[in-house]
Amino acid sequence: EKSKSKFLNFTSNIKKKALGDPRRVIHSLKVGSAITLVSLLYLILPLYEIFGLHAIWAIFTVVFVFEFTVGAVLSKFTNRGFATLLAGALGVEGVNLANCFGQKGKPFVLGTLLFVLAAGSTFSRFFPRIKARYDYGVVIFILTSSLVLVSGQRVEGIFDFACQRLYDILIGGAICIVISLFVCPVWAGQDLHNLIASNIEKLANFLQGFECAYFECSVCKDNPDKSVLEGYKSVLNSKASEELLANFAWWEPGHGRFRLFHPWTHYVKIGALARQCSYKFETLDRYLTPEIHVSLEFKGKVQEPCKKLCWEASQALKALSSSIRTMTEPCDAKLHLENSKNAIQNLKIALETTSLEDEELIAIMPVFTVASILIETTKCVEKIHDS
Amino acid sequence: EKSKSKFLNFTSNIKKKALGDPRRVIHSLKVGSAITLVSLLYLILPLYEIFGLHAIWAIFTVVFVFEFTVGAVLSKFTNRGFATLLAGALGVEGVNLANCFGQKGKPFVLGTLLFVLAAGSTFSRFFPRIKARYDYGVVIFILTSSLVLVSGQRVEGIFDFACQRLYDILIGGAICIVISLFVCPVWAGQDLHNLIASNIEKLANFLQGFECAYFECSVCKDNPDKSVLEGYKSVLNSKASEELLANFAWWEPGHGRFRLFHPWTHYVKIGALARQCSYKFETLDRYLTPEIHVSLEFKGKVQEPCKKLCWEASQALKALSSSIRTMTEPCDAKLHLENSKNAIQNLKIALETTSLEDEELIAIMPVFTVASILIETTKCVEKIHDS
Repeated sequence: EKSKSKFLNFTSNIKKKALGDPRRVIHSLKVGSAITLVSLLYLILPLYEIFGLHAIWAIFTVVFVFEFTVGAVLSKFTNRGFATLLAGALGVEGVNLANCFGQKGKPFVLGTLLFVLAAGSTFSRFFPRIKARYDYGVVIFILTSSLVLVSGQRVEGIFDFACQRLYDILIGGAICIVISLFVCPVWAGQDLHNLIASNIEKLANFLQGFECAYFECSVCKDNPDKSVLEGYKSVLNSKASEELLANFAWWEPGHGRFRLFHPWTHYVKIGALARQCSYKFETLDRYLTPEIHVSLEFKGKVQEPCKKLCWEASQALKALSSSIRTMTEPCDAKLHLENSKNAIQNLKIALETTSLEDEELIAIMPVFTVASILIETTKCVEKIHDS
Repeated sequence: EKSKSKFLNFTSNIKKKALGDPRRVIHSLKVGSAITLVSLLYLILPLYEIFGLHAIWAIFTVVFVFEFTVGAVLSKFTNRGFATLLAGALGVEGVNLANCFGQKGKPFVLGTLLFVLAAGSTFSRFFPRIKARYDYGVVIFILTSSLVLVSGQRVEGIFDFACQRLYDILIGGAICIVISLFVCPVWAGQDLHNLIASNIEKLANFLQGFECAYFECSVCKDNPDKSVLEGYKSVLNSKASEELLANFAWWEPGHGRFRLFHPWTHYVKIGALARQCSYKFETLDRYLTPEIHVSLEFKGKVQEPCKKLCWEASQALKALSSSIRTMTEPCDAKLHLENSKNAIQNLKIALETTSLEDEELIAIMPVFTVASILIETTKCVEKIHDS
């Protein structure tokens, strides 16, 4: 019984994953067909007679190069291709050089070359710029140059050996690129675009939820979902995935509404600003816990402008998010920003006319300060967004 | 001239990188010697007669398995080893199964098996838990099972072929492990330990710098360095590297002051708390810009307790950081926390006795609120840290 329920749990887990993003299932099927296609070169006799043993090596390429997004495939393929080309050329030259030293000296020269190339390339991987874009290429460079140099000792046609490796990569790579480009392509650029838009939307939702939860407004009697309030948490740590996607997006040809040299770095900048917003929200979030008690009287006094401020800021963020999605000028956002600036003025007036005999306003102030910071950040977002 | 200065710039860049962390140079040399060592099996004739063509494949293992930290090497080696074992066994069984279908049916059965295995394994890579720990293993599983299945069509001794791949991995892996364990080992655990301690220290430095910059105290006439105030920014995005290191540290045997099953997950928790602190600091940091003007009179009134609070909190963090470094009980930290609680009380009293006719206190409040949140966070850190 227990194992049965475990199995059911397991299958439902898989189902959830598959339905959550059908692209994942499609990707798996694509990888499966790419590998099968390559292996057909080997399995079917007439094709085998043309391609020979190459096919086996092409499988290596498919397994390592076929990634989820088109950009990743192109980036890895280019890395692999150029690294092999370079390493092959260097390796062949190295073997030629070693041949000059006679049969006795040859192994020593080859060993030294191996050591120098491997150590040098490994060191270059520590540079962040190389790491970000060419890491895979360097690994393949080390691999291929070692293979060519080592083979130089025993294999005769070393030049053919290097060429062969290049062919394998071309066969495998071509299959990967064709399948990833033309069968339900997954674009890193599109993903990045959606990620940024949905992150900004999450911020907007938080502000709206915060307004309801903090001021217990009458419009939303039912408490906002925990999920709405915690959506922004995923924005906090979005840096790595955004930069990775932007990196891959750079490799992609124009697709859909994106031109070839779409300003992907702008997305990274907007993402950074959104993250700054989310840091502020993290601070705000603390004030939702009931243990911090506030003077209700005072809260009532600032409630109106604060609510207005939250509302307008969240509307501005929503407008920004949808203008990113539709790639139009954010006119609505401007309007809401103007409104929220008015709200700030109203809040200032409300504060001036209120007698402040109560220190509990400590708990109310951050709403104001953070909201005003938010306004500035939103302004920045608006300025930067030019797409 | 221009190219010369560029070259000088380039070399000085390399020098800086090398001197910044000499372990990087050592690591590069280690990789170089590992690859040379493996290739000796092939280059030197007597060894070649024993090991034969295996050596070439062992180079693959060294190139892909040799990572910076011991934990990463062990994790990759285990992944590669078990994946190959499993894939080899499955592949051989698959070929045996295909043999039952006669010469005509064989390619179809092999192709179907290939497709199913590749698609299934690729899909499993989308599960975050598998992705985090076994991603490399799954890739190798796909690769080896494809190779074995495809070879099943033409190569006769398919069982030997699978065994051979396993030998290669053992030879290459053994060399990697021996070199990474015994020649200047770099421990992921130690790195994680240092990272967490230095992150907490950066937070402490920020608080201290903030105190000086905000209240322009007399002790530190020279403005604190920008670098001190911005150190905490690296804590904001430390999540990925902390989790990666904790993952690798899990694989490492006991070393130095760490037992075999050191509670690495605690470090991740402490790291998360430190990150929360840094989010608050990000908010605080805004108030250092001169454009937010504050009533100096009011600032003077809360200055004393606020400064005290900053000081004690930063001392508490420093004590925590050094107690993590030395792995002792944080007694000093407790003392400083008590003091900072007193400072909070003093601040409250100061606020109560001050007449609040000025709204500019907006700019002073966050100091208080954030500091009090900080206290709570620090308490959490203390609670969790049990090493």
